[in-house]
Amino acid sequence: MHKFLLLGGDSRQVFLSRILAGNGFKTTIHYDSEDSSFSMEEAIKSHSIILFPIPFTRDKISLFSAQPMDDLGIGNILSLLTPEHTVFGGSIPAYVKEYAKTNGIACFDYMDMEDVTVKNTIATAEGAIAEAIKLSPCCLHKSKCLVTGFGRCARTLALKLKGLDALVTVADRNDTQLAFAGSIGFDTVPLSDMKPSMGEYDFIFHTIPALIFEEDLILSMNPEVTIIDIASAPGGVDFEVCRQQNIRAKLCLGLPGIYAPQTSAEILFEGIVKNLS
Amino acid sequence: MHKFLLLGGDSRQVFLSRILAGNGFKTTIHYDSEDSSFSMEEAIKSHSIILFPIPFTRDKISLFSAQPMDDLGIGNILSLLTPEHTVFGGSIPAYVKEYAKTNGIACFDYMDMEDVTVKNTIATAEGAIAEAIKLSPCCLHKSKCLVTGFGRCARTLALKLKGLDALVTVADRNDTQLAFAGSIGFDTVPLSDMKPSMGEYDFIFHTIPALIFEEDLILSMNPEVTIIDIASAPGGVDFEVCRQQNIRAKLCLGLPGIYAPQTSAEILFEGIVKNLS
Amino acid sequence: MHKFLLLGGDSRQVFLSRILAGNGFKTTIHYDSEDSSFSMEEAIKSHSIILFPIPFTRDKISLFSAQPMDDLGIGNILSLLTPEHTVFGGSIPAYVKEYAKTNGIACFDYMDMEDVTVKNTIATAEGAIAEAIKLSPCCLHKSKCLVTGFGRCARTLALKLKGLDALVTVADRNDTQLAFAGSIGFDTVPLSDMKPSMGEYDFIFHTIPALIFEEDLILSMNPEVTIIDIASAPGGVDFEVCRQQNIRAKLCLGLPGIYAPQTSAEILFEGIVKNLS
Amino acid sequence: MHKFLLLGGDSRQVFLSRILAGNGFKTTIHYDSEDSSFSMEEAIKSHSIILFPIPFTRDKISLFSAQPMDDLGIGNILSLLTPEHTVFGGSIPAYVKEYAKTNGIACFDYMDMEDVTVKNTIATAEGAIAEAIKLSPCCLHKSKCLVTGFGRCARTLALKLKGLDALVTVADRNDTQLAFAGSIGFDTVPLSDMKPSMGEYDFIFHTIPALIFEEDLILSMNPEVTIIDIASAPGGVDFEVCRQQNIRAKLCLGLPGIYAPQTSAEILFEGIVKNLS
Repeated sequence: MHKFLLLGGDSRQVFLSRILAGNGFKTTIHYDSEDSSFSMEEAIKSHSIILFPIPFTRDKISLFSAQPMDDLGIGNILSLLTPEHTVFGGSIPAYVKEYAKTNGIACFDYMDMEDVTVKNTIATAEGAIAEAIKLSPCCLHKSKCLVTGFGRCARTLALKLKGLDALVTVADRNDTQLAFAGSIGFDTVPLSDMKPSMGEYDFIFHTIPALIFEEDLILSMNPEVTIIDIASAPGGVDFEVCRQQNIRAKLCLGLPGIYAPQTSAEILFEGIVKNLS
Repeated sequence: MHKFLLLGGDSRQVFLSRILAGNGFKTTIHYDSEDSSFSMEEAIKSHSIILFPIPFTRDKISLFSAQPMDDLGIGNILSLLTPEHTVFGGSIPAYVKEYAKTNGIACFDYMDMEDVTVKNTIATAEGAIAEAIKLSPCCLHKSKCLVTGFGRCARTLALKLKGLDALVTVADRNDTQLAFAGSIGFDTVPLSDMKPSMGEYDFIFHTIPALIFEEDLILSMNPEVTIIDIASAPGGVDFEVCRQQNIRAKLCLGLPGIYAPQTSAEILFEGIVKNLS
Repeated sequence: MHKFLLLGGDSRQVFLSRILAGNGFKTTIHYDSEDSSFSMEEAIKSHSIILFPIPFTRDKISLFSAQPMDDLGIGNILSLLTPEHTVFGGSIPAYVKEYAKTNGIACFDYMDMEDVTVKNTIATAEGAIAEAIKLSPCCLHKSKCLVTGFGRCARTLALKLKGLDALVTVADRNDTQLAFAGSIGFDTVPLSDMKPSMGEYDFIFHTIPALIFEEDLILSMNPEVTIIDIASAPGGVDFEVCRQQNIRAKLCLGLPGIYAPQTSAEILFEGIVKNLS
Repeated sequence: MHKFLLLGGDSRQVFLSRILAGNGFKTTIHYDSEDSSFSMEEAIKSHSIILFPIPFTRDKISLFSAQPMDDLGIGNILSLLTPEHTVFGGSIPAYVKEYAKTNGIACFDYMDMEDVTVKNTIATAEGAIAEAIKLSPCCLHKSKCLVTGFGRCARTLALKLKGLDALVTVADRNDTQLAFAGSIGFDTVPLSDMKPSMGEYDFIFHTIPALIFEEDLILSMNPEVTIIDIASAPGGVDFEVCRQQNIRAKLCLGLPGIYAPQTSAEILFEGIVKNLS
């Protein structure tokens, strides 16, 4: 029987630990610094499966942890792994994957599991919607929303905005994606040609991991617009210009962990089970 | 030209004041205690239209105000009104309406304006959705949602939940309402027969201003359920039992003022204009 | 045990007969003239429940029948009924109801059963959509659709058109209905003020049992428009003017019987059972 | 200025000809055999752009034509083309494309234009829905629908069925496609594992160009099911077995030409303009 050790992370780890236990697995979770008797060395020795957080790290030195913890140094932890271990984590850095390969350690990145990332778009979309409703003093209903990009996250989000009766325009670089967006009911605009209509939008949801909204475009916006940026940090919006222009804009990272840690943990659990069997 | 005086209330008053000014009306807003030179007597004398807050009062002594203010006593303010005044407000108490009638003061309650209340259901629905996403660690997507009642608020909310891919069941006392709910795609259950399926729901949205969820029903719920109560205070859920059972439940009042003060103010503005002309 | 006699009508009667039989009831159906040994007198004598068609009659002389039949004279049939009989039918004329009352015959009109009529709107809406797709050489997707009225049929239809990504405008006389329509995402226009926007619509779905579309409005239409009239005969469109103007227009009556006789029969069955018990 | 010659085909050619003329282009259409003075040789000589039908051919001998015509032999027509010609058509056979390339004739296949094919899925979906409503005596509303495949056509169709309140399950070979389908609200089932749930469906929409529904699966179906096959001929259903089992099944080809020739012609026009410029 597998024994799971969960290290750091956010509340998804807590839910994941509960789900594993509920399915009969032995689990140990090291999530905050309360248990002073915890020994990383013994814990790694006595567990065959290590569940690293999402993301694996933010500072490139320690595992990411929502709680302050001082024993999550990446170097030390890696040195304790052996070919008997199987590890999972999110957005694992290339050098860690390389280290695992070289040392015969089975290593799975949640972000490489297509069905995990697709299912995660749901929690991201719901979180982005909650953020937009909170941040703006206006309703989404019948508002004009721009969604940049039409990848997995953008599709789920655009459909849910439409489900809330928003009027959604999709901007993308790719003609085929725009035609697809049009075929499921969205208005479309080429990403390179957004400026003329920039002033029309009440909400902008940005999903492309690239700096798209620079000063020029921001100055063309309706000053009452609300921008929700869900692209990876540092996002795709010049927030400094937004501040100067008094435009509401928020970089929203890690939405699944904030808004749907339990559902997210269930998705991770399914991904883990599938890859272990 | 009408001159508007706005007294107390929440940020909807601030937005309403701006909209009136933007449409060329003279407005004075008395929203917090910063302006020490403000004289209620002079203000009421020099303005023909008084916009009271929503709700008119919470404590039955002073006008409702989100900011601490000490010159909003209802008795004093009423005594200053004359037949030259026209007043607007939300949920105005019967005795105030009576006083206005007796004294020849034109008095309009936003809550009696059908189109204002119907449009307000949108902001309420979006706010309820944001609250549900925040409160629950699970997604609305494909969750089982119960909406009690099928009045104006419930309809708008149920349709938006469906737009987010939730599986919505409507509970109502009235067979015709249930048939109507069924014809637009909802599952239905008689309000008096909810107990057998009570354990199935992930979310419960309560819109009926009556105590429906007492101990008996609460004990039949899935312990992981999330309850959002948007019925008027004191709501329709025994929150004490929820606390004992460790069930997530929140009474959410005044959602339009919290989540969409600008859109709400635009709706009030339209209602005011319509009734003045 | 009840014995059912079904007389005349369209294929709903055939399906209804099968459903009754499938539920263990004895049924006799007199639907076409094939069985030359059929005696109306004996049939009515030996069955306690008579299921008349929908509508009860079209010519006011005989029961309505999709098949040519010559023994369905209303006068004769009524004279055979006794207080032991219970009768059901759709749109039963007032004088027949009066006759039943006077003679102690229990008489139920499907059209007076709120849940039957509400459920029937679904089949009507689907039929109207199929007719529109067939009649027009254009797509409903992203087309501009006008739905006149916002009663039961109109609501179901408008929501389904929206579900197909049509851009739906609702026209109604009543401000409250328009506010309600707006709150669930439709554009709205007062019925009395349709002319200025008349030229914008690609499809018009008419649900109001009154002559609304006369020459004046028809001449303001886009000549490529497609009109589907689902109001009761003779409908609410001047079809002669449409013909002259070469405008596609079709009066669509009895859509549930044409497009969904089985689902319709199930709904009738539920209505019958509810009223018998 | 380009001169367009349209040969054979269905009513899309008639609408396309009108749209071209409406945009100021000279066009000649050879659509039926009424004009006995028509000379193919002169027509091809005097027009630089030839618009072949969709599909290019059905019998591999003559161009496809909905009307009986005897001068559409492919060999003769090809021999009249010169490097001055540009040709368009749908599903052009490989050998014709090869011939064009060898002889310096610019040749565009509509089916290779991604945005044309994506937009065409809309008319296909609406046509499939109309066919389903007509063929089945039941409603789509709340029915259980299976959509096989999750390519372009299937996606558009599945979303529209959901918009009509059908309960849609998507079957596909590919896990990623299934996760995507799940993320936008559909139930999913692996294509290889459909048998256990086969009996649940009221409607089956088949979009995969392969024989999937053979005797074994058909015998597991609900006998009241309605099958709409929109995969390319000969379709993916054993229609002979369906007939024996008395199961409603219809192969529906060329739906855009039947249900939306005008919208389809507009899409072709956009594709032509884009490729000419």
